Amino acid sequence: MAAWGERLAGVRGVLLDISGVLYDGGEDGGTPIPGSVEAVARLKRSQLKVRFCTNDSQKSRRELVGLLQRQGFDISEGEVTSPAPATSLILKERGLRPHLLIHDGVRSEFDQIDTSNPNCVVIADAGEGFSYQNMNKAFRVLMDLEKPVLISLGKGRYYKETSGLMLDVGAYMKALEYACGIEAEVVGKPSPEYFQLALKEMGVEAHEAIMIGDDIVGDVGGAQRCGMRALQVRTGKFRPSDEQHPEVKADGYVDNLAEAVDLLLRHAVQ
Amino acid sequence: MAAWGERLAGVRGVLLDISGVLYDGGEDGGTPIPGSVEAVARLKRSQLKVRFCTNDSQKSRRELVGLLQRQGFDISEGEVTSPAPATSLILKERGLRPHLLIHDGVRSEFDQIDTSNPNCVVIADAGEGFSYQNMNKAFRVLMDLEKPVLISLGKGRYYKETSGLMLDVGAYMKALEYACGIEAEVVGKPSPEYFQLALKEMGVEAHEAIMIGDDIVGDVGGAQRCGMRALQVRTGKFRPSDEQHPEVKADGYVDNLAEAVDLLLRHAVQ
Repeated sequence: MAAWGERLAGVRGVLLDISGVLYDGGEDGGTPIPGSVEAVARLKRSQLKVRFCTNDSQKSRRELVGLLQRQGFDISEGEVTSPAPATSLILKERGLRPHLLIHDGVRSEFDQIDTSNPNCVVIADAGEGFSYQNMNKAFRVLMDLEKPVLISLGKGRYYKETSGLMLDVGAYMKALEYACGIEAEVVGKPSPEYFQLALKEMGVEAHEAIMIGDDIVGDVGGAQRCGMRALQVRTGKFRPSDEQHPEVKADGYVDNLAEAVDLLLRHAVQ
Repeated sequence: MAAWGERLAGVRGVLLDISGVLYDGGEDGGTPIPGSVEAVARLKRSQLKVRFCTNDSQKSRRELVGLLQRQGFDISEGEVTSPAPATSLILKERGLRPHLLIHDGVRSEFDQIDTSNPNCVVIADAGEGFSYQNMNKAFRVLMDLEKPVLISLGKGRYYKETSGLMLDVGAYMKALEYACGIEAEVVGKPSPEYFQLALKEMGVEAHEAIMIGDDIVGDVGGAQRCGMRALQVRTGKFRPSDEQHPEVKADGYVDNLAEAVDLLLRHAVQ
């Protein structure tokens, strides 16, 4: 592999995944990953632009940012690209009235959306809300539509909490896709539209940006397909087998965000 | 389409799906489909061999047969091919110790199976048992195995109860397949091994047998791929669009089991 100086040349903007990179979530709010609070602070003091790009769809942007601030992170709502507000915008633009299968924590992002007489289904990481009854209700709404529209906030397979691995929304998206014989529209990583939204909000071109994430497919593969570079951290849901993934090869593997920021400050910033 | 006489020539054995053909299930035990009780009785009085071939994995064979007998059906346990006993046999043969994600109604079929220190996961139509917590538990068991083995009792997309359409085990199988990046082994229709088991138990060759079911893919397509003929009934989960299915064409479409039996007794029996 080329030297770090070559791999990181010309980087002007950094996209940071949140869960598994900044902190590991959990029932108690989770805990910061060692070194990440300081790493974010150092990054924000540098010339590099920073944007947080999450697939978290259990919490409103406000709730997520509040939780991270309490853990010591320097982060504000305006710096976060998050799938729920992006979906809310799409629903308004297309005149869609969703049946919502979502976590209560994110419901406030849809306050302005008409949910009467639904003509689509929106699913997010509903956690315990993914009961058989709720899944069956969403399924029946889709089957009653002439042209079923299913919008999924991300398509993650699983994520890591302090208690262990947790099934993510992607698994339930696949269940509904199969049952109804349809394909969902994904709002979130690795959808190219979603990465492009984050780049636009950061004001940086794809070739000048680097993604840092713990998901070899959703973060690393997705960002690379958009023309960005991407590093995988060995925290969060990282597994050693990720470094031999059959389809995706990161531009670099680092132990954690602290190491990634060390390298960026040494090699990307002139 | 050829005349019925030609299409049904040489049929010696009839495989009957149960749910959606004999009866529509429901919380109260469900209700027989009009004409089906008499149709089964007439078929059993004829020279044709009969076997019931179900994917029902919520109930033990004993419970299912008891329920159907109370509705007036002439049926006994020995006449039913059902996925739970077939799975139990496979587990024993291969020395597999399952983590069971199944309905309480079918648990007795696994009484003789060692479930300590699981080295595979078995899922069946768990209904309300498909909680997020139970799904996550099954997911974690699979992720902890070096070579995850997932056995699914059927892969149906949905079935019909008196209250409406119900998500079937196939949807949850897809969720776990996606989350773990694996492929499940299916015991049940449309798996060829399962149809062949039913044929063997009936003592009839595939080319002499006809399947009657409400599922265009699982019943009709599956049976045809095994060299059998197959009729679709317009009851149960049948939808008008099934008659224009892009991949599967039944050897005939009939309003219900009563019509199918009329045709068989008229054209197949000499």
